[in-house]
Amino acid sequence: MTPPHDSSTHEQPLYRRLADHYRQAIDAGVLAPADRMPSVRKLVRTHRVSLSTALQACRQLEDDGLIEARPRSGYFVRPKRRITMLPASEPDPGRLPAPASYVGIHDRVSDFVAKCEQHTTSVNLALAAASPAHYPGDALKQAMIRALRKHPSMLVDRALPRGHPDLRHVLARRALELGMNPDPDDILVTHGCIEAVNLALRAVARPGDTIAVESPVYFGLLQILESLGMQALEIPTSPQRGLSVDALELALQTHPHLRAVVVVPNFQNPLGCVMPDTEKARLIKLCERHQIAIIEDDTYGALCDDNQLPPALKSWDRTGNVIYCASMHKTLAPGMRLGWMTGGRWDARIGMLKFAQSRPNEALAQVAVAEYMGSTAYDRHLVRLRRKLKIQREHIAEDIARYFPPGTRLNVPEGGMLLWVEMPGQQSSTQVFEQALARGIRIAPGTMFSNADRYNHFLRLSCGSSYTPQMAEAMRTLGDIVTAAG
Amino acid sequence: MTPPHDSSTHEQPLYRRLADHYRQAIDAGVLAPADRMPSVRKLVRTHRVSLSTALQACRQLEDDGLIEARPRSGYFVRPKRRITMLPASEPDPGRLPAPASYVGIHDRVSDFVAKCEQHTTSVNLALAAASPAHYPGDALKQAMIRALRKHPSMLVDRALPRGHPDLRHVLARRALELGMNPDPDDILVTHGCIEAVNLALRAVARPGDTIAVESPVYFGLLQILESLGMQALEIPTSPQRGLSVDALELALQTHPHLRAVVVVPNFQNPLGCVMPDTEKARLIKLCERHQIAIIEDDTYGALCDDNQLPPALKSWDRTGNVIYCASMHKTLAPGMRLGWMTGGRWDARIGMLKFAQSRPNEALAQVAVAEYMGSTAYDRHLVRLRRKLKIQREHIAEDIARYFPPGTRLNVPEGGMLLWVEMPGQQSSTQVFEQALARGIRIAPGTMFSNADRYNHFLRLSCGSSYTPQMAEAMRTLGDIVTAAG
Repeated sequence: MTPPHDSSTHEQPLYRRLADHYRQAIDAGVLAPADRMPSVRKLVRTHRVSLSTALQACRQLEDDGLIEARPRSGYFVRPKRRITMLPASEPDPGRLPAPASYVGIHDRVSDFVAKCEQHTTSVNLALAAASPAHYPGDALKQAMIRALRKHPSMLVDRALPRGHPDLRHVLARRALELGMNPDPDDILVTHGCIEAVNLALRAVARPGDTIAVESPVYFGLLQILESLGMQALEIPTSPQRGLSVDALELALQTHPHLRAVVVVPNFQNPLGCVMPDTEKARLIKLCERHQIAIIEDDTYGALCDDNQLPPALKSWDRTGNVIYCASMHKTLAPGMRLGWMTGGRWDARIGMLKFAQSRPNEALAQVAVAEYMGSTAYDRHLVRLRRKLKIQREHIAEDIARYFPPGTRLNVPEGGMLLWVEMPGQQSSTQVFEQALARGIRIAPGTMFSNADRYNHFLRLSCGSSYTPQMAEAMRTLGDIVTAAG
Repeated sequence: MTPPHDSSTHEQPLYRRLADHYRQAIDAGVLAPADRMPSVRKLVRTHRVSLSTALQACRQLEDDGLIEARPRSGYFVRPKRRITMLPASEPDPGRLPAPASYVGIHDRVSDFVAKCEQHTTSVNLALAAASPAHYPGDALKQAMIRALRKHPSMLVDRALPRGHPDLRHVLARRALELGMNPDPDDILVTHGCIEAVNLALRAVARPGDTIAVESPVYFGLLQILESLGMQALEIPTSPQRGLSVDALELALQTHPHLRAVVVVPNFQNPLGCVMPDTEKARLIKLCERHQIAIIEDDTYGALCDDNQLPPALKSWDRTGNVIYCASMHKTLAPGMRLGWMTGGRWDARIGMLKFAQSRPNEALAQVAVAEYMGSTAYDRHLVRLRRKLKIQREHIAEDIARYFPPGTRLNVPEGGMLLWVEMPGQQSSTQVFEQALARGIRIAPGTMFSNADRYNHFLRLSCGSSYTPQMAEAMRTLGDIVTAAG
């Protein structure tokens, strides 16, 4: 074949070398956006490769978001990512809202769910979840069957305290990539990150206490706080740099009895922001000085575009002041509610609370997941998932740039599956939500991400599903709705 | 063959007819305790049956507790159950302890666990659990594998709210046997009965509130209350008739702000008692009149000797004042933490709390268990399990009668897997516990079953495991320890 053989690509399969050849051509502008790719048949002839190699190369380029198939016309070079949008506006760190005595986020969420159920949804952009098809369902199924055969009495033997040793061992090893170095004995397996955050809050605070949270914040956390009778103090959070440490410092002057701060330092929901290392270090120091517990929710950390995991806040912790919580729900298997935590200096209390609340997790899922996460198949799955999320995110972002009215603000995160869109005018997200719903499109209105009403002109759009013509159409419709509402 | 053929036995397999023939002889005293059974070879000759039929008949009689094998000597008729013991003493319903502000049951249980871990245990009589071998591990494993194959994307699809419809349907159908008639939509699947009781308590009460509980009471409930910051008011409970409704009525005069009563009406832990129907009806009325929620824990109800389920308290409930909680942990699979509840008039609040605390349960275990519990295999399993528990309970009770000092008091329940033994003198259960532990025998000291110190001269012994010569030896040793401590 004719593509250049340099030493770095020499080990790669033929189809990858062929794909790289065309990638370079696209990067260099030799093939410009909207240009037609050579047909598969032509690739076969030109490069003297098999039909299957030519097809694989095209699929690789398509997966990488460089070309797209048009029905009955072949492959075309995709338009360059041209997201020339205003960056998201920065919050004023001096403007602190009062801690919300507001109780009603459950009602608001219930109302949202009830409304959604009244309409047939054809395109769901509301769920912070990726398509089931993006996860290794079959491999996990096989691991599960192997676990059942290998340990035939697993379903009738009592579960081990704190979680199965196999899984705790694998999690400890994987945590090294996050800059952490936990002892497997320090790890507690939970029913998802949700249970972990519940246990962490119950360990460090009591009903009536005030907890600092990011603003905007995942409504699920507001629901947890409401259900525990705790109050949320919303701390301004930058779409670029995450939780404002300055704002938290200010808040401590007026709220000296703050018990804890719950923070999603990596690919925050809904902002998608990652706290810079310097801010992470500052947050650690500030909270140590004021004896405030940090509850870190690292649900999305592993979903970074460049396969280089952003370090956990916990990796700066030297005093046990950080309770680290994570989940396999978004990264590995949405149908298995598995999470884990390390409790820092609250370890014993958290262990007691877990036992009293739900007893140790069953062994089966843990053993199967330990096998899968201990293998390189897991790494390959993550690489694929990250690539898919990146492509989908860019598609949706491009559509926002194309169809939303001028003045729309947006940062495109480099990981996760969420976009937080600021509408430019007086549009109400509740109104947009209802109009979109009537057209079969589900989105999450900004009002759900705060106890106060400060995000009514925002929308959260999920990029978890494969981009389809139907989704493109939905994005155009959504743009029309937002424009008309302005 | 020669055994009588009456119409009722005509449908039974040959070995069962043969076993029944000898059962009648034993019942009639033709074969007296300690008499040698005819040898297997003799059975073959006398009744002209195969060796395998003769062996099966003997095993059946052994399973039924009528004969026992002695090594190298053949089968002998077992001594008649001769449990001529003092009945358990009744509590004084007028003697109400103060609600315990005592916080420390976790420390007490941790201390118990730590001590246990320092010793090698050869016989464990401390665990309120039956042997894994008593459960249908293999059938559940097969159901699990079928579920995985039938629903290949189950591990990556999001779980359904409130639990899988298949399981909720089967549970609703099975609940008919308990006198209940729940709509499948009213059922909420939980992580075991423990999570259900947590949710129920959180739904009806707040930290600082006082909750009435039985006395003696399962220490796990005291742990839950302590972890939720609630206080336990221990209500005298009869070993014969369960929770004293009179005592509760009295308690309401001095504690008008009681929020709820948690009750195990069927085969209570540790007493093994069942509330008579009249008392169940009285309790329902009393709590309705005083607007006190009833939280019913029916973990053991299905484990009744005579296959006639004692009705749930919930079956008297007409106003939604009873929150019913149950588990598959003791009846079906100790390695699967599955439970369920119906929330009565707190249904919506409980649904919200479950969502905020741990999200819906994963589908896989639910689908597999639904298949098994929907089949007659489940009924057959229960019949077997009940028979085993009965035989084991009687063995242990006989040993107590034989080896424990005179004046020992004991009721032998007609279900469940627990015996609550009152020692006659000044024996301390803590001391007996430690001495037994040093000999490799684990028991649960009475001190664990109350926040106060009123059960120090009681022991809870579990009859969940098959009776072995080693266990017989352990019971004799335990008897010696108790006698010496007197």
